[in-house]
Amino acid sequence: MRIHILNGPNLNLLGSREVEIYGRQTLEALNAHLRTVAEEIGVEIDFFQSNHEGALIDSVHAARGKADGLIVNAGALTHTSIALRDAISAVQIPTVEVHLSNIHAREEFRRHSVLAPICLGQISGFGPRSYELALRALAVELGEMQSED
Amino acid sequence: MRIHILNGPNLNLLGSREVEIYGRQTLEALNAHLRTVAEEIGVEIDFFQSNHEGALIDSVHAARGKADGLIVNAGALTHTSIALRDAISAVQIPTVEVHLSNIHAREEFRRHSVLAPICLGQISGFGPRSYELALRALAVELGEMQSED
Amino acid sequence: MRIHILNGPNLNLLGSREVEIYGRQTLEALNAHLRTVAEEIGVEIDFFQSNHEGALIDSVHAARGKADGLIVNAGALTHTSIALRDAISAVQIPTVEVHLSNIHAREEFRRHSVLAPICLGQISGFGPRSYELALRALAVELGEMQSED
Amino acid sequence: MRIHILNGPNLNLLGSREVEIYGRQTLEALNAHLRTVAEEIGVEIDFFQSNHEGALIDSVHAARGKADGLIVNAGALTHTSIALRDAISAVQIPTVEVHLSNIHAREEFRRHSVLAPICLGQISGFGPRSYELALRALAVELGEMQSED
Amino acid sequence: MRIHILNGPNLNLLGSREVEIYGRQTLEALNAHLRTVAEEIGVEIDFFQSNHEGALIDSVHAARGKADGLIVNAGALTHTSIALRDAISAVQIPTVEVHLSNIHAREEFRRHSVLAPICLGQISGFGPRSYELALRALAVELGEMQSED
Amino acid sequence: MRIHILNGPNLNLLGSREVEIYGRQTLEALNAHLRTVAEEIGVEIDFFQSNHEGALIDSVHAARGKADGLIVNAGALTHTSIALRDAISAVQIPTVEVHLSNIHAREEFRRHSVLAPICLGQISGFGPRSYELALRALAVELGEMQSED
Amino acid sequence: MRIHILNGPNLNLLGSREVEIYGRQTLEALNAHLRTVAEEIGVEIDFFQSNHEGALIDSVHAARGKADGLIVNAGALTHTSIALRDAISAVQIPTVEVHLSNIHAREEFRRHSVLAPICLGQISGFGPRSYELALRALAVELGEMQSED
Amino acid sequence: MRIHILNGPNLNLLGSREVEIYGRQTLEALNAHLRTVAEEIGVEIDFFQSNHEGALIDSVHAARGKADGLIVNAGALTHTSIALRDAISAVQIPTVEVHLSNIHAREEFRRHSVLAPICLGQISGFGPRSYELALRALAVELGEMQSED
Amino acid sequence: MRIHILNGPNLNLLGSREVEIYGRQTLEALNAHLRTVAEEIGVEIDFFQSNHEGALIDSVHAARGKADGLIVNAGALTHTSIALRDAISAVQIPTVEVHLSNIHAREEFRRHSVLAPICLGQISGFGPRSYELALRALAVELGEMQSED
Amino acid sequence: MRIHILNGPNLNLLGSREVEIYGRQTLEALNAHLRTVAEEIGVEIDFFQSNHEGALIDSVHAARGKADGLIVNAGALTHTSIALRDAISAVQIPTVEVHLSNIHAREEFRRHSVLAPICLGQISGFGPRSYELALRALAVELGEMQSED
Amino acid sequence: MRIHILNGPNLNLLGSREVEIYGRQTLEALNAHLRTVAEEIGVEIDFFQSNHEGALIDSVHAARGKADGLIVNAGALTHTSIALRDAISAVQIPTVEVHLSNIHAREEFRRHSVLAPICLGQISGFGPRSYELALRALAVELGEMQSED
Amino acid sequence: MRIHILNGPNLNLLGSREVEIYGRQTLEALNAHLRTVAEEIGVEIDFFQSNHEGALIDSVHAARGKADGLIVNAGALTHTSIALRDAISAVQIPTVEVHLSNIHAREEFRRHSVLAPICLGQISGFGPRSYELALRALAVELGEMQSED
Repeated sequence: MRIHILNGPNLNLLGSREVEIYGRQTLEALNAHLRTVAEEIGVEIDFFQSNHEGALIDSVHAARGKADGLIVNAGALTHTSIALRDAISAVQIPTVEVHLSNIHAREEFRRHSVLAPICLGQISGFGPRSYELALRALAVELGEMQSED
Repeated sequence: MRIHILNGPNLNLLGSREVEIYGRQTLEALNAHLRTVAEEIGVEIDFFQSNHEGALIDSVHAARGKADGLIVNAGALTHTSIALRDAISAVQIPTVEVHLSNIHAREEFRRHSVLAPICLGQISGFGPRSYELALRALAVELGEMQSED
Repeated sequence: MRIHILNGPNLNLLGSREVEIYGRQTLEALNAHLRTVAEEIGVEIDFFQSNHEGALIDSVHAARGKADGLIVNAGALTHTSIALRDAISAVQIPTVEVHLSNIHAREEFRRHSVLAPICLGQISGFGPRSYELALRALAVELGEMQSED
Repeated sequence: MRIHILNGPNLNLLGSREVEIYGRQTLEALNAHLRTVAEEIGVEIDFFQSNHEGALIDSVHAARGKADGLIVNAGALTHTSIALRDAISAVQIPTVEVHLSNIHAREEFRRHSVLAPICLGQISGFGPRSYELALRALAVELGEMQSED
Repeated sequence: MRIHILNGPNLNLLGSREVEIYGRQTLEALNAHLRTVAEEIGVEIDFFQSNHEGALIDSVHAARGKADGLIVNAGALTHTSIALRDAISAVQIPTVEVHLSNIHAREEFRRHSVLAPICLGQISGFGPRSYELALRALAVELGEMQSED
Repeated sequence: MRIHILNGPNLNLLGSREVEIYGRQTLEALNAHLRTVAEEIGVEIDFFQSNHEGALIDSVHAARGKADGLIVNAGALTHTSIALRDAISAVQIPTVEVHLSNIHAREEFRRHSVLAPICLGQISGFGPRSYELALRALAVELGEMQSED
Repeated sequence: MRIHILNGPNLNLLGSREVEIYGRQTLEALNAHLRTVAEEIGVEIDFFQSNHEGALIDSVHAARGKADGLIVNAGALTHTSIALRDAISAVQIPTVEVHLSNIHAREEFRRHSVLAPICLGQISGFGPRSYELALRALAVELGEMQSED
Repeated sequence: MRIHILNGPNLNLLGSREVEIYGRQTLEALNAHLRTVAEEIGVEIDFFQSNHEGALIDSVHAARGKADGLIVNAGALTHTSIALRDAISAVQIPTVEVHLSNIHAREEFRRHSVLAPICLGQISGFGPRSYELALRALAVELGEMQSED
Repeated sequence: MRIHILNGPNLNLLGSREVEIYGRQTLEALNAHLRTVAEEIGVEIDFFQSNHEGALIDSVHAARGKADGLIVNAGALTHTSIALRDAISAVQIPTVEVHLSNIHAREEFRRHSVLAPICLGQISGFGPRSYELALRALAVELGEMQSED
Repeated sequence: MRIHILNGPNLNLLGSREVEIYGRQTLEALNAHLRTVAEEIGVEIDFFQSNHEGALIDSVHAARGKADGLIVNAGALTHTSIALRDAISAVQIPTVEVHLSNIHAREEFRRHSVLAPICLGQISGFGPRSYELALRALAVELGEMQSED
Repeated sequence: MRIHILNGPNLNLLGSREVEIYGRQTLEALNAHLRTVAEEIGVEIDFFQSNHEGALIDSVHAARGKADGLIVNAGALTHTSIALRDAISAVQIPTVEVHLSNIHAREEFRRHSVLAPICLGQISGFGPRSYELALRALAVELGEMQSED
Repeated sequence: MRIHILNGPNLNLLGSREVEIYGRQTLEALNAHLRTVAEEIGVEIDFFQSNHEGALIDSVHAARGKADGLIVNAGALTHTSIALRDAISAVQIPTVEVHLSNIHAREEFRRHSVLAPICLGQISGFGPRSYELALRALAVELGEMQSED
């Protein structure tokens, strides 16, 4: 079982900006931690981060036939990118949406996700831990789907 | 560490309605499972379900001084009950919001949670597993908060 | 064939308030009349009125396996109670929505029913007679459904 | 006592389109059935159907001094024709609005009736039976009005 | 100089409905009075009333090459008929919009005229006298336009 | 019979600005012309123009007991001044609203008049002639009101 | 003269939550103070608090024939409970609406009261003193109403 | 294969109005040209134009069992006529919507088509050539549908 | 302790207009009464009324360093004057907003106060008594603020 | 004559996703077919597809001085990319907008094209054939434009 | 070259209110500084401040024929005064809009300027320096306009 | 002191498109001019232009630790790119927003900047000179900030 983890604009800055909100853990450290979790639960994971919507879409396309699941934190594109939504929807890979902060508790324009309607579920507000929760949850969901086949 | 789990209107029917969506696990079975998880991670939990908004508010009030955290699935009250929101906000107990279905992928009126702005985080779309994810996540958050004191 | 008739907030005052609009017939008298009609058309009916949303939801739940049809006048909850809607939708009992006044001819906020999308039909504007019309209509619908099985 | 029954655009197709929704009863058959009911309850009825808004307005005008009540299914004009509303309002004949389907359970634009605010009541969702319910209800209302004079 | 006066739905009932608002003057009497005014100011006028939007559009088309000006009271079509607006706009005849009542003091939906943006001016609220004011005003406007050529 | 004519902000510039729209007639010349018309129809008129909302309100108040009718072109205050509306409404003097241009054919924010709901009628789009039409119309209305007393 | 004072959801927590906003006075202490004021001005008062909308409605109904006036702080139900509004409106007892905080200075959703249109007046922003102001004001109003009879 | 071409209000004026936009080709000339194209591609076509919504609906009804496809330019009714939409939807004939101008580049109210949701496709902005494009496109679509049966 | 009482547009007419609503007490009489109350509670008051927004703003500015509190009934400016709001906000004098009528029970546009968010509290619906309530309430608030310093 | 054909996000997946909607023709196959059509009608065409908005804008810029016309299917960027709109608008090359599906029959957010107001025309709903229709239509338009010079 | 600088409501308080935002520079000191800048760049300037919308409009009118340019900070009237907009638009003097704070970063109602559509440009957010920037910018613009004549 | 100047989509075309609006100065010439100004006021500047949102975000990130201020003309991304906003907000470099045209005087969708709330100030409408004004203003602001440290 292989899960592809996608991070959108500005997530490369994790750990070095607004540390009072997001903590001092960098994206690299987070990814390292997720790798440990992945090994523990027996799934393969890889990562992609970009500030370019197009590169994120390309990465979703490339996941076809390679990844069994997607974990996506599209950053600010969450609220605007119908193109990314269509990409996920087109490759038909089960997807979990994650957010570091609780987007539903922030500015009005951050409360609406254009990705949500084509995702399995959404986890938001647990900081970097949102990813681990998503990884564990998605692994179980995928396991169940496979056993149903 | 003690966590109070609150279920709102119609969640008593879990397992016996629309089983193709929510599965055949009843609320009792789910609670039993959560009790096992709670033991595993060393937290005490208890449960309350009601179809009465007032009873849910009373239950939130009663949790003051007793519970360290709340997990709330307010059902349809999620979208309308400012009174429940004010109750949670008044008792100042860290709260995680859960939903069985991905509410952001459903009818327009289900996409907005009046509780979200006063909750730590939100987990939606993983069926009964949403609760387990919330329980594990909240336990870690509360642990960290206590170690910060 | 058994039909459960549900009355929401303030309908207990029927006959004793705003009599120029609703007439002098009390809820008890109306129910008595409906009982006569029920006997005439050969259906069993029973009644429940409450000013508590939760009690109405409980009553809908209790109707599962007991009632073949529901007649609901949710009063002001018609316009706000997604929880009651979800209850009716969960028990999957054919439901007719009734209103004493023509809600579509009143204040803007009374013209929208959150229950309507999960009901068979709606009858509004005929005062207490709305119930009798609903009873007769629902009995025929249920009869047809049963003969189709 | 005389009741004029008005059918708007596309209702001439009744029975020959979307039969899974509306059944196989044609408008002619429905009218025949209504005539039987009318005889039973001792009222005279006549019918008019047109796909032309103007013809429907003319027909409402012509009913002045001739009809004691109107039953109107304006079809799609229900949602747009202020002119038809003004016609009914001008002739001051008590009017019941009927709909085959439960318009409040359909697309957003079908949930609003511009006619409703000037009608006695509304019956929707009972298929062709909506008319019979309206006919019986209106006859009683008119009877009561006359006995009040 | 020739002016064509167009009356829309329900204006045929003038004088026989809601007389406390519109007075007892019928459309025929009004037209007779307007004919007297027309003679006094030396313009030819003719009239057309219909409850059919299509007939009104046909009448606007027919006015091309025959009428120098239009006076239009489109009744309820004022608020909805883009088709009538396009007709007036297509024939490029200077048009004055009249209303018996002050539409800007009535229900919200009557305050917006889809015809207004392609008319010279609007006169509303003076009952049948609105037409005389329009006739006098339009005659002067047309006179000036002709003397400018 | 005495009519008070009120002009709001920027109307003092009439005749010297945007002459291609409003013509070269100054407010003074217009007033002179209106004085001639007033004499012809036997009414007394006086005038007040101000760019100050407060002064216009004062002038409306001062008209109590002195003027039988008001003609008001409130300029841009038409769209915003509830205070001026309340003033007119408080003194209970029959009022006609005039506009040089057809405000319903202009920018969206000019199409709504907060004064309209408390005025007898509205005349817009006839340039300076709008005033003469209003003067003649109001004189007749007032005449009729007085003969009704 | 008897005045019934109604407190809605979460007001039982007064004095023990967010004391920096609402002060340390409990609801019991406030009620005791109000009793003193009541004695001073010669009116009888009693109290009811509930977190249950239904119980509040029941309490309003029970006040019929017993109370001459109502003072209502419906808490968060202020913004949503049409059912409570209808209850107050049905019993036709003069009602004053109070709020501890200035609801018009808070979140958008707290600025609108569904109760206001059927109340005599509203006092908001004076903390627990809002009740005393309401009590004194309502007593005077009721006194005047009685002396008018 | 037979295609029925429907033209709505004001399209009879084609070629004689606003020729700088629509060119000098009349509807008759356009129809003649379309007949040539139809012969070339081996389909039968006929035409109907009316300024009456009702006549257009009648014409759609009459096409049942006679036409295999519809090409509709409903003119201004595009934006308002739910009745025409229901007619097309009822007869279940594949339909292509055409517009002379690019309606999506015009006034806001022209950018929304109530017909679009029940049509195969839409072609707008190519002047009279929009029809030829629609004819060729629909013929191919129908050919494919038939070969799929 | 000194309190400045500000009255906006049309309040000079108090007592002489719409007496069935506002009673026969003039602004002068009301002020005289307030002076008595002020003496009783030991505060100095003065008054300013103007129909000019600018004069009201000037008066607020002039109160700096002179008044300890403001009582403001801005009349219709309540709903529109951001400038007056900014003035009150700039001088940082505690302010109570009063209204004669219950503005929340009136037309939609009167239900929103642009001043409210920068005021201590709001009292509306008690006629001239609203001022006395405000005076007593503000005096207590100011007393407490001073004793807190 | 040279036409540049631009495809936006996710169109590279054509033929391999949701084949029941879009068919099994890949973008390459479609382009090959369009090349045949282009030869037949004597125009040169070339293609560009990217999932990157920036690359699409660069491609539009590069077309200046090289292409006589553009055919654009911007995919999901249709609904959001003002930047792409400005690019097309800046290079002033006549452009036709195409869509595989009938966007006006889909989700609300897909019904609005930000590109439409600066395009010649729009063709939507004919699957891959939309491109061929656009190519033929644009070639004729460009031919006419050139012969007009 | 002469530039007239206009300041609206509350700007007279500059330097003495909310000094943490606007600094301690008074309007007089700012004007003195601007005079120095004006001399440096060779333009004449004068100033007008008022809290009265009417006085500001009068001042704009008075600038006709005297000023070559206007710099306007209308304070809160920026968001509401169509009358001031019309005044500036009527005198046709090139105008630059300035704001001390970045209005686009403040409350929603401050982000919209009704003046902007008739101004050359807007400078906001630089505190008192916004004026100097505007002065320098406008002087260059006016210089260029004059050299173009 | 170092200032980074960022230009978004389509600004590479400056000087070669719509020259009647933006003039004939290319971006290169503008940059050269800005370099002269920068030297004059003693700040270092560099430039980046891209049509790719992602590249602009990368460039903002790269400015961390290198630039003391940003000047941003995001072109059409101004109105849509929350991702760019978050980038600027994350690097916490003081930023001035510039626009060639007065965006507040253009189409509705161009009047709203998603960047504004996290910028120091905004300058729009002065063509290429907007940049020079921003450069001078930002240099002074930065100078002051540094002297405050």
